[in-house]
Amino acid sequence: MQAVMSVAEMNAFMDEVFPQVSGEFEVEHMDGYETVMRRRVKESDLRPGGTVSGPTMFGLADVTAYVATMACIGREALTVTTNCSMDFMRKPSADRDLIARARMLKLGRTMSVTDILIYSEGDEAPVARANMTYSIPPKR
Amino acid sequence: MQAVMSVAEMNAFMDEVFPQVSGEFEVEHMDGYETVMRRRVKESDLRPGGTVSGPTMFGLADVTAYVATMACIGREALTVTTNCSMDFMRKPSADRDLIARARMLKLGRTMSVTDILIYSEGDEAPVARANMTYSIPPKR
Amino acid sequence: MQAVMSVAEMNAFMDEVFPQVSGEFEVEHMDGYETVMRRRVKESDLRPGGTVSGPTMFGLADVTAYVATMACIGREALTVTTNCSMDFMRKPSADRDLIARARMLKLGRTMSVTDILIYSEGDEAPVARANMTYSIPPKR
Amino acid sequence: MQAVMSVAEMNAFMDEVFPQVSGEFEVEHMDGYETVMRRRVKESDLRPGGTVSGPTMFGLADVTAYVATMACIGREALTVTTNCSMDFMRKPSADRDLIARARMLKLGRTMSVTDILIYSEGDEAPVARANMTYSIPPKR
Repeated sequence: MQAVMSVAEMNAFMDEVFPQVSGEFEVEHMDGYETVMRRRVKESDLRPGGTVSGPTMFGLADVTAYVATMACIGREALTVTTNCSMDFMRKPSADRDLIARARMLKLGRTMSVTDILIYSEGDEAPVARANMTYSIPPKR
Repeated sequence: MQAVMSVAEMNAFMDEVFPQVSGEFEVEHMDGYETVMRRRVKESDLRPGGTVSGPTMFGLADVTAYVATMACIGREALTVTTNCSMDFMRKPSADRDLIARARMLKLGRTMSVTDILIYSEGDEAPVARANMTYSIPPKR
Repeated sequence: MQAVMSVAEMNAFMDEVFPQVSGEFEVEHMDGYETVMRRRVKESDLRPGGTVSGPTMFGLADVTAYVATMACIGREALTVTTNCSMDFMRKPSADRDLIARARMLKLGRTMSVTDILIYSEGDEAPVARANMTYSIPPKR
Repeated sequence: MQAVMSVAEMNAFMDEVFPQVSGEFEVEHMDGYETVMRRRVKESDLRPGGTVSGPTMFGLADVTAYVATMACIGREALTVTTNCSMDFMRKPSADRDLIARARMLKLGRTMSVTDILIYSEGDEAPVARANMTYSIPPKR
């Protein structure tokens, strides 16, 4: 499979539609099946005990599934999350970036299903797993 | 049932352990079974199309389940989320606060299970549903 | 709200489309928002330790969400489950029926979201919680 | 990694603890990380439209996660499912067995987290995905 956009195009699209989080996320790889995303961890993402907040990990899973869907269907800002589930399995490192690795399990006409493993960079064991369903708007 | 802390004590505890999000959340009610929480919606929580971001709703569900658990067991900052699932069902209003209503479905010795409905203030139909499992550390 | 079919009509419809499980399920109440379903527990549903199997509870949640959706849109055998999550919270009794209580959280044009609590008949604390998404086929 | 039991030992253990479903399931591979399980599809598992029932797929995911956990910790009949989520993505074939492929994402002292893809035998695209949490009883 091959993505319908390049990594550079996707990073530019992200900066355009999500200016609020510019600089936080970076697409590292996408090929229409697998997507790899980096989330830079900042001071305000941390929580007591030297760990990264749950909403930071949720946001990473969400954005990665969004990008994985765009990689297949192209720019479509109106695509929205309808369902997710997550398991938080290990404590992420406060001083390393998070890396998400997603697989596109189903790309239908009206929805996509992606699963995602999240790692503290450099670790072999994932800190969290997630699955996300995105609703894809009908073509005009 | 009755909560083991007052609403005022809980709001003070929240400000102490989560200074990063001070002023965003306010416990409105808790009785050991039901918990009601307000999330003030700010400019930086919004997304294109006049809606509230997914991580904002996830964070609200997470904090509400945390408070619902504390309402039963008392101050315990080390309690951590282990699992959640959410359905995003309707578009929240950009110009109203979010209100979460949680029920404590199970309080075990080592974990709690809570379900949560999230509303844009004043609406009857929920914008999202969530369930959260928290792990409770063993007593020393 | 009011269901578009009577309880007697729904029970007859169930026997017609699911002859394999005839006699296992009985709709007790439905009003377009809440649905109450009984699942008769048989010897073959039990598991070691005097409990009821997970698939029996999953099947009950699934059928209850299906009936709750039919209660709103009428007979539509092609409606299919697309997503579920469940928490198994307490051990069900081997010698009592299971009772499921569902709420219709969202009825959209193409999908429904239902949440369900499952009880051993006569107990106040639920044995399981579930949420189910059903896909509704487009009108011809 | 290596499983603590052989495939033959696990199949014998399954027949012993789940006589109700003897002959339905067969472990094909397990190595302490990946587990592959076959579910023979019978007439009574089918549903209208030439498909396999949801509870059949749930049961397969559940048993596969159970076996994947036993592969790591050894015979432990009291291990119980506490949480699952599933996406039903494609219609399974009525005339082929189901094959589940599981990965052990976390094996903790008190719980395991497994994710599972389910296929109609011979197809490349999965019909369902699941994740399962099992609670592991404390050592006496």
